[in-house]
Amino acid sequence: MLDVSFIPFFSFLALLGLLCVAFVSAWCQHWRGGFAWDGSAQMFNWHPVLMVTGMVVLYGAAALVYRFPSSWRGPKLPWKVLHSVLALVAFILAVVALVAVFRFHNDHGTPNMYSLHSWLGLATVLLFSCQWVTGLSTFLLPWAPTWLRALYKPLHVFFGSTILMLSMASCISGINEKLFFSLKNGTTQYKLLPPEAVFANTLGLLILLFGVLVLGALARSSWKRPNGDSPDSCQVL
Amino acid sequence: MLDVSFIPFFSFLALLGLLCVAFVSAWCQHWRGGFAWDGSAQMFNWHPVLMVTGMVVLYGAAALVYRFPSSWRGPKLPWKVLHSVLALVAFILAVVALVAVFRFHNDHGTPNMYSLHSWLGLATVLLFSCQWVTGLSTFLLPWAPTWLRALYKPLHVFFGSTILMLSMASCISGINEKLFFSLKNGTTQYKLLPPEAVFANTLGLLILLFGVLVLGALARSSWKRPNGDSPDSCQVL
Repeated sequence: MLDVSFIPFFSFLALLGLLCVAFVSAWCQHWRGGFAWDGSAQMFNWHPVLMVTGMVVLYGAAALVYRFPSSWRGPKLPWKVLHSVLALVAFILAVVALVAVFRFHNDHGTPNMYSLHSWLGLATVLLFSCQWVTGLSTFLLPWAPTWLRALYKPLHVFFGSTILMLSMASCISGINEKLFFSLKNGTTQYKLLPPEAVFANTLGLLILLFGVLVLGALARSSWKRPNGDSPDSCQVL
Repeated sequence: MLDVSFIPFFSFLALLGLLCVAFVSAWCQHWRGGFAWDGSAQMFNWHPVLMVTGMVVLYGAAALVYRFPSSWRGPKLPWKVLHSVLALVAFILAVVALVAVFRFHNDHGTPNMYSLHSWLGLATVLLFSCQWVTGLSTFLLPWAPTWLRALYKPLHVFFGSTILMLSMASCISGINEKLFFSLKNGTTQYKLLPPEAVFANTLGLLILLFGVLVLGALARSSWKRPNGDSPDSCQVL
């Protein structure tokens, strides 16, 4: 395939991730009234910004930690810590994002957890919490035996990619849903494709591009740790 | 990882795929008024049914053809034909599904191509059409040289999984959108979670489960053709 080395590709992905965060922040600031923490629509706006930042961009960065060739040499512990800290920050942002939307719903008498977006989104965050706890207790803490690490590793890798896919689908359905909610009475309808709709639709496509490129980077065999499937890849530290 | 052989796993996937088709058909038949080809809402109902059947279930089946151990022995041509025919049928169903929604929109004065769902869905079908044509001309027709097949194969595999992921995101956003459209005035609102909403949300989760399991099966190294990346895997017939 195309002969690209990982570092320039990661740099491009970092720019693309920043662009996603800039787009979702600009959407909420410019068209949706900015940010607050008071149960209002401005509080809701933290939901898309923190979800895209946490469950897509930081999550993607965490997933790619072991693709840096420098992580293949020397002790693995610092890279494990980096992987888990990035994932933990992503998870904390996701929890704050959930608090923002539940508080907004509760203060407006809107039921929680009825749309497919909400079912999928919450399932994704719950799956992520299980993934983080099992990852920590199996790979970072020193007590799990090697055979257990070797057994669990392919599952951790599989669910790692799966959770990113589910995050992408959650973001797409969430942006779509929010535009149908917002662009109706008193504003140009979504179906007339006002500038906000073009902007937020483009945000959705950028998120998908970012996620697909992360999954592509994870799948590329030449960027994987050499002998990454051998038992000693499950070393304790 | 878990020691499962491919054939029982594929049988389970086939049942799950049939369940997805049954769910989307039952939703449209029981709650959305059934089917017609006259520009009405009954014509729209072909859209979700054909998209789930084509772009998810048949597409997934086409992607898994080379995971059958029997495809690794003897001439490759019959398997290539099966792979491309399944994909072609999936593509034709997707085109008919697009005709259904465009005709429904046009007959009701609704603009086309404004929602993120529609942008993503059309992009997915267009990407699929490119994938099918380049796949046919590179791997099935006998004229492409071996070096070109070897160069293109990883891209074909990567876009194969990517298109399935985009299909899944399209389905989720489409089901979510349709429920917001349908469950409002004159019926129990979506936010009150009537039985139709529970049923269609469950359909969305089943589609994701099917797609994730197909992608997991594709990624599982022990189910890949042995030496599948060697140059002779790009044999002409």
